[in-house]
Amino acid sequence: MAYELYYWPGIQGRGEFVRLAFEATGTAFADVGRGPNGVRKLMAVLSGKGVPHGNFAPPVLKHGRVVVGQTANILFYLGPRLGLVPAAESLRLWTHQIQLTITDLVAEAHDTHHPLGPDLYYEDQKPEAKRRAELFRKNRMPKFLGWFEEILSANGRGRHLVGNRLTYADLSLFQVVEGLRYAFPETMAKTEKDYPLLVALHGRVAEMPNIAAYLASPRRLPFNEHGIFRHYPELEA
Amino acid sequence: MAYELYYWPGIQGRGEFVRLAFEATGTAFADVGRGPNGVRKLMAVLSGKGVPHGNFAPPVLKHGRVVVGQTANILFYLGPRLGLVPAAESLRLWTHQIQLTITDLVAEAHDTHHPLGPDLYYEDQKPEAKRRAELFRKNRMPKFLGWFEEILSANGRGRHLVGNRLTYADLSLFQVVEGLRYAFPETMAKTEKDYPLLVALHGRVAEMPNIAAYLASPRRLPFNEHGIFRHYPELEA
Repeated sequence: MAYELYYWPGIQGRGEFVRLAFEATGTAFADVGRGPNGVRKLMAVLSGKGVPHGNFAPPVLKHGRVVVGQTANILFYLGPRLGLVPAAESLRLWTHQIQLTITDLVAEAHDTHHPLGPDLYYEDQKPEAKRRAELFRKNRMPKFLGWFEEILSANGRGRHLVGNRLTYADLSLFQVVEGLRYAFPETMAKTEKDYPLLVALHGRVAEMPNIAAYLASPRRLPFNEHGIFRHYPELEA
Repeated sequence: MAYELYYWPGIQGRGEFVRLAFEATGTAFADVGRGPNGVRKLMAVLSGKGVPHGNFAPPVLKHGRVVVGQTANILFYLGPRLGLVPAAESLRLWTHQIQLTITDLVAEAHDTHHPLGPDLYYEDQKPEAKRRAELFRKNRMPKFLGWFEEILSANGRGRHLVGNRLTYADLSLFQVVEGLRYAFPETMAKTEKDYPLLVALHGRVAEMPNIAAYLASPRRLPFNEHGIFRHYPELEA
């Protein structure tokens, strides 16, 4: 059965966490939103046309008759199928818990440029964004990144978040580092030394042959100012 | 094995979604954070003392040697054990997807009084809260509540969110209606007629004998201005 990912074309966004799981494992999938009539097909899946139920927002995964929405839920479904999660229930729940904490960080990173919500353009909430971004850089980023460093440190040699093999949470944390480096380069340059295990994990993921090939390919969209991680220099000033 | 919930005393907060699952099914559990030395015990579980791993934030559930964090993850774990989710994998994922969308709504409801994040008091972000709350009431609330109404309508007679039996998502949606009625009573009074299935589901949950007994007991904390759903009249003006 073919895997079909439904997500906006033109941005990495939340879809990227799913793409990385497919790419890391060399799993074929259709990136439907980026193909012919992609947005129309995405809209049909959201509204529930031809699938068992509607979906509040993308990404959505179709796999035969199964339709799964919510990024972390999609990864929970794919984990055992792609070999990206241990077999034990307690470790699957722990991996999912980490992923849901990454979800929270991603939402807060988004809100640095949209503190009043998604219904106004960034340009209509710039002063508020400046205040929220400052609090994010000073308090929230260290709290989240410090926690990831801590659980890496508590896990054996700190090479993986869970157990001694790659999970989808490792891949998602790689993407978080990528995104934060893009959005807040000065902050990351100054503070990465506080998170040596996290930085090392990011480096190892980047060097995986499948991931290195993906990052060098046109399939990897560049970051831009339409996605979750955006570089507005004024938010780091 | 005993169920132990670790959450802040004094507020319903995110812990309430877990409490409702226990209460609806008449399942005994220890509400550790509200007992002797509750906050100290909560802090130990967060920092990872005596448990397999640290946790970013409460609620946390302990069940024998299993430790689960993140509200939706806890409910995913409890669902089959309390008989609050169907057996089929696709329906468990769908129930979880709905719960994660409730999680998103809850985060946005929180951000109406904390648009700049959790590091400032409400009193230090009142003008921003007013703007965000207005957008939430006008755009986001109808989008979320409309979606819940839609998936109820698409599911048979619309008496449950998933299948034809109660799930933890039904209980959580009951709590969302409770919270929104507390935080935004005028908005709800004006708009509830647009969501008849949602309102009927709320009413049926409230009338379940176990839930009615719980709501009338001192175990049910009142809403207040320290939790997620807060009533600040100026945010509805």
